[in-house]
Amino acid sequence: MNISHIEHVGIAVTSLEEAIPFYEKMLGFKCFAIEEVADQKVKTAFFMVGQTKIELLEATAPESAIAKFIEKNGGRGGIQHIAFAVEDGVANALAEVQEKGGRVVDAVPRKGAEGLNIAFLHPKTTCGALVELCEDPNK
Amino acid sequence: MNISHIEHVGIAVTSLEEAIPFYEKMLGFKCFAIEEVADQKVKTAFFMVGQTKIELLEATAPESAIAKFIEKNGGRGGIQHIAFAVEDGVANALAEVQEKGGRVVDAVPRKGAEGLNIAFLHPKTTCGALVELCEDPNK
Repeated sequence: MNISHIEHVGIAVTSLEEAIPFYEKMLGFKCFAIEEVADQKVKTAFFMVGQTKIELLEATAPESAIAKFIEKNGGRGGIQHIAFAVEDGVANALAEVQEKGGRVVDAVPRKGAEGLNIAFLHPKTTCGALVELCEDPNK
Repeated sequence: MNISHIEHVGIAVTSLEEAIPFYEKMLGFKCFAIEEVADQKVKTAFFMVGQTKIELLEATAPESAIAKFIEKNGGRGGIQHIAFAVEDGVANALAEVQEKGGRVVDAVPRKGAEGLNIAFLHPKTTCGALVELCEDPNK
């Protein structure tokens, strides 16, 4: 697997309306996109920091993974996942992980925010951290 | 505040011995340093991914922030903090955050791993995510 960089870091928040001004006012970032990902039941906001995006995630339904993360976290937001950009395709990367005995959440890539092909590894395989692999199909 | 990039992402693990091989074997990263930070009661392992480091953190004492994080997280590891590299000094950044009404954990910068000057913002100010600001005093 050839990982070039951290594509984004996903941060769960209880409210984008509250969180976006923090990241803009306190840290000087500029939100460049807000997108709803119906499939994942989240609304996202993006900031560019060097070569990596910060993706803020607000749940749009109680069954969303973000709502469950916040519930487990005592009602507070927190850093939910880290996404690595793979250069040789998410499907190949998933095959490689499984060949090496690792477990995956998504057996085949699916569509994430910004039209990326994405897949999550299983936290049991990653020593606890939720790890996403992604590729831009237009690159 | 002028943030250039994400300096590192801190991931709490229950055992570096188990976690390092995962990051090397499954994701193809190479651990380039292991360091004990006595002050924070942690042992750390570093990997470079693009312009950002992954910092794995194992607690060396039960009162370590990492041990408390893992305890709250049901005994599992997870992504504990995100560290932004500030270009105009951590002390200036802390002053700016406080002037704008934000709360900080560290009122003055202290030494972190790799000799960086670091300070944490208060999670109440950051909508839940634990945010560190850092600078390399030798740059």
